[in-house]
Amino acid sequence: MGQAEVGNKTGRRRGRAARMAARAAPLAEDIRPVRPGLHGGRYRPLLEQEVKRIHRAALDALQQIGLGQAIPSCVDVCTAAGAEIGEDGRLRFPQALVEDVIAKAWRRQPLYGQQEKHDMLPAGDRVYYGTAGAATQVIDLENNNYRDATIRDLYDSARIAETLDNCHFFQRPLTACDIEDSATLDVNTLYASIAGTTKHVGTNFNVPEGAEMGLRFLHRYCGSEEAWRARPFVSNSNCFVVPPMKFAEDACRVLEICVRGGMPVLLLSAGQAGATAPPYLAGAVVQAVAECLAGLCYVNAIKPGAPAIFGTWPFVSDLRTGAMSGGSGEQGLLAAACAQMAQFYDLPGGGASGMCDSKLPDNQAGYEKGINTAVAGLAGLNLVYESIGMHASLLGFCLDSMIIDDDMIGQVLRCVRGIEVTEDSVSLEVIRQVCLEGPGHYLGHEATLSLMQREYVYPVLGDRSSPKEWVEKGKQDLVRRAIARRKEVLANHFPGHVSDRLDVALRRAFPLMLPRSVMRADA
Amino acid sequence: MGQAEVGNKTGRRRGRAARMAARAAPLAEDIRPVRPGLHGGRYRPLLEQEVKRIHRAALDALQQIGLGQAIPSCVDVCTAAGAEIGEDGRLRFPQALVEDVIAKAWRRQPLYGQQEKHDMLPAGDRVYYGTAGAATQVIDLENNNYRDATIRDLYDSARIAETLDNCHFFQRPLTACDIEDSATLDVNTLYASIAGTTKHVGTNFNVPEGAEMGLRFLHRYCGSEEAWRARPFVSNSNCFVVPPMKFAEDACRVLEICVRGGMPVLLLSAGQAGATAPPYLAGAVVQAVAECLAGLCYVNAIKPGAPAIFGTWPFVSDLRTGAMSGGSGEQGLLAAACAQMAQFYDLPGGGASGMCDSKLPDNQAGYEKGINTAVAGLAGLNLVYESIGMHASLLGFCLDSMIIDDDMIGQVLRCVRGIEVTEDSVSLEVIRQVCLEGPGHYLGHEATLSLMQREYVYPVLGDRSSPKEWVEKGKQDLVRRAIARRKEVLANHFPGHVSDRLDVALRRAFPLMLPRSVMRADA
Repeated sequence: MGQAEVGNKTGRRRGRAARMAARAAPLAEDIRPVRPGLHGGRYRPLLEQEVKRIHRAALDALQQIGLGQAIPSCVDVCTAAGAEIGEDGRLRFPQALVEDVIAKAWRRQPLYGQQEKHDMLPAGDRVYYGTAGAATQVIDLENNNYRDATIRDLYDSARIAETLDNCHFFQRPLTACDIEDSATLDVNTLYASIAGTTKHVGTNFNVPEGAEMGLRFLHRYCGSEEAWRARPFVSNSNCFVVPPMKFAEDACRVLEICVRGGMPVLLLSAGQAGATAPPYLAGAVVQAVAECLAGLCYVNAIKPGAPAIFGTWPFVSDLRTGAMSGGSGEQGLLAAACAQMAQFYDLPGGGASGMCDSKLPDNQAGYEKGINTAVAGLAGLNLVYESIGMHASLLGFCLDSMIIDDDMIGQVLRCVRGIEVTEDSVSLEVIRQVCLEGPGHYLGHEATLSLMQREYVYPVLGDRSSPKEWVEKGKQDLVRRAIARRKEVLANHFPGHVSDRLDVALRRAFPLMLPRSVMRADA
Repeated sequence: MGQAEVGNKTGRRRGRAARMAARAAPLAEDIRPVRPGLHGGRYRPLLEQEVKRIHRAALDALQQIGLGQAIPSCVDVCTAAGAEIGEDGRLRFPQALVEDVIAKAWRRQPLYGQQEKHDMLPAGDRVYYGTAGAATQVIDLENNNYRDATIRDLYDSARIAETLDNCHFFQRPLTACDIEDSATLDVNTLYASIAGTTKHVGTNFNVPEGAEMGLRFLHRYCGSEEAWRARPFVSNSNCFVVPPMKFAEDACRVLEICVRGGMPVLLLSAGQAGATAPPYLAGAVVQAVAECLAGLCYVNAIKPGAPAIFGTWPFVSDLRTGAMSGGSGEQGLLAAACAQMAQFYDLPGGGASGMCDSKLPDNQAGYEKGINTAVAGLAGLNLVYESIGMHASLLGFCLDSMIIDDDMIGQVLRCVRGIEVTEDSVSLEVIRQVCLEGPGHYLGHEATLSLMQREYVYPVLGDRSSPKEWVEKGKQDLVRRAIARRKEVLANHFPGHVSDRLDVALRRAFPLMLPRSVMRADA
């Protein structure tokens, strides 16, 4: 046996023992291979002149076409700021006004979590993934069924989100069907979310009364209005526009309340290319940009510098049927292009990417989500909404899928992080040592050991065993393992940041429907 | 009912009828939304100076470290060209030699199909997807099992590849276990592939005798050596290097035969980061680039300007176990970075992307493949090998997955194609018409109808129905539908480009094992 081979075996043995020891140790925060807010932006679907052309067309659309159906208070604040109301009733935004608003808008500020460690900085090409949606159905994988979503499902999904490393924020993904009254639903949606997770929450208010109650609730929850306003950890997902180019009455009333109440608003333009937005992808981006810029003018007319997220969410139609296709490649392109537009304006950008058309977490769901979340992240979309747990083009939400998707986002984030090219990482010296001085492989090399956790992301549920090991382990099914993990999390993880005392006080003052009993481990 | 609403209904009705008519018509070639050879390259994982730094390190590695275990004929041709053999037996390549070879290498030339319509031009940032691999097992989804691969499986997978729009070439993905003799296996691998598909074929020769027989076979198949050399539609996938930085004896002998025989060679460097390549991703790229440049020097020393594909295929280790992880995000990054290196050299680049760690076409397989094929395509990798049908980190191949993956690649190609930004596509005029003149939506607009097929890709198996429709259709399972489709293709699609007469002549002259009976529909 030659020298090299002896060195081989020793090196391999040492390497394996050392790897096993390192594997057993907990992963320190500073060496985590991926984290919230990594910089994307190395994928540029649009050329610079294309970005400017879209911008130019959006300005033209705002000045020439404007938006219809503005409510009187919207007309008042916007015309006071420089917008013009036409004889056709449309509110038009002159180019100078829009450019002025863009220049002075809120930017490069945090979106807060209840806990500081969950604060996000949606700016530049930083990337955060999270949930969102208004699914009225939840997928029951054990029975291969869709069923109506409940307020408890919402609380449970918030609790799962709290435990997922790669779910950076929690926007309410579902609409509870077991609460009828709109304002009551609004305050319960809010409470179920913020009681379930300490990450930043996005919520929805269906009616102005809900928004008002929600703000009162938050003042009480935080101890005071000042405390709430100091760190507003809830944003309002606001569909202020009914594409194409019309304001939505109720949502605008809610928007005014939220802006004045210090709540960041996600200005959500959700046209569907080929139905409520132009069928050309570029045109769908133009319309979404124009609508969101109108929203930005509106917000800044109410309160200059109020926090607002540039929520260009153009969706895709399957033009054969007119139905939405959330999992298509076209959807990924739209999200990526919108990310670039937000970066052009230096505004915090949010988009929808990662919902799928598939009804279940099958292979189709996997590739639809994988393609779309990768494309959005590489483009540097700041806030990737709908990226976790969503199915059936937003019609169904699946708690088990959240757990699978968290693994997926881990791999996507690894791509977003990119390749570090440094004197060390090009590895000339390591190659030289291994090739010229033995052992002829890198298994036991100190560089390998030191990089095992820092450079590589390992899935939690994802199975990397060989076919032989897979057989030995009983050919475990991913979906079954996700179900088991979901049950384990829900049985054991109760965040505990809402004290009994506070909960009781809140329940006295507000019509809260989530039983206190489900909020405890001993229930 | 107001005017707008009347317009609405009429428009919608007209739109739906027109859409249904268009849908029924076959899709003309010139309006296909995606096609082979689309331009990628909008994703740049490496900065320009990082590309140069990797290049510099690769040159240093070639000059200072060199490659071990060169066979005498390799030493002879390479030293004659300017390489230096050291006292340590390593073959070193001076910078000037490498740069000269890069400058004069084969580039911007087609890789031929048997049919001209399948010719590829792997150059610049053009993207083609296909199969590859050496899996010894095939996945039997109906029985949830892995079983040994046979030569008939290879023929069948070639036939399936022939029918898939988004599978642009067929490199042999599996190793038939029912043929023992190496040279016999080689010629049978070749025949099973080229009899099954008229697309470009990549094949493997395990032994020099196999390569020699393979060339003789191709001369006979084409009618003459000249006919073969005029349009060499088969390339040799050649693992000429055993990373790190050592030549592989048998593969080098095969390489010399292929280069002299006019067969393009895929110079395949398949180091595994953390095992046979540096654990730093950048270092793994450096080593792969150095090894492929050495191979390029070798090929050009044998025959200047001989066709060679720059096959940087660095793989990823799961450093917890040392096993390969083909589905990881790190794998996507490596493929994308290598695409950039090939573009830097203006060489036809091939890499591995889209194999997965999952044993079955489940959700994990979907997201692993979706992420990896998207990342590679957006980076403009010319030839994306292993992108269709591959599982278990190359240990298992699945014919049914090919069909699912074809749908996936369709969506990825849609992303690669990108967004066209033109005067028409920004849609200002369309938005104006719809908003100011009615009907307030785009469903019936002529632009929508005309773009239905040109701008949007529709999946073949992928299910975009609503949950309600999904229930009504019996909750069809994607995998079951893929199995059914595979059976249908295999029962009905026999390419028929090999005449009975030629087949009989070939069988007389070569030890062909695939029964003629399985090559006919009436079998």
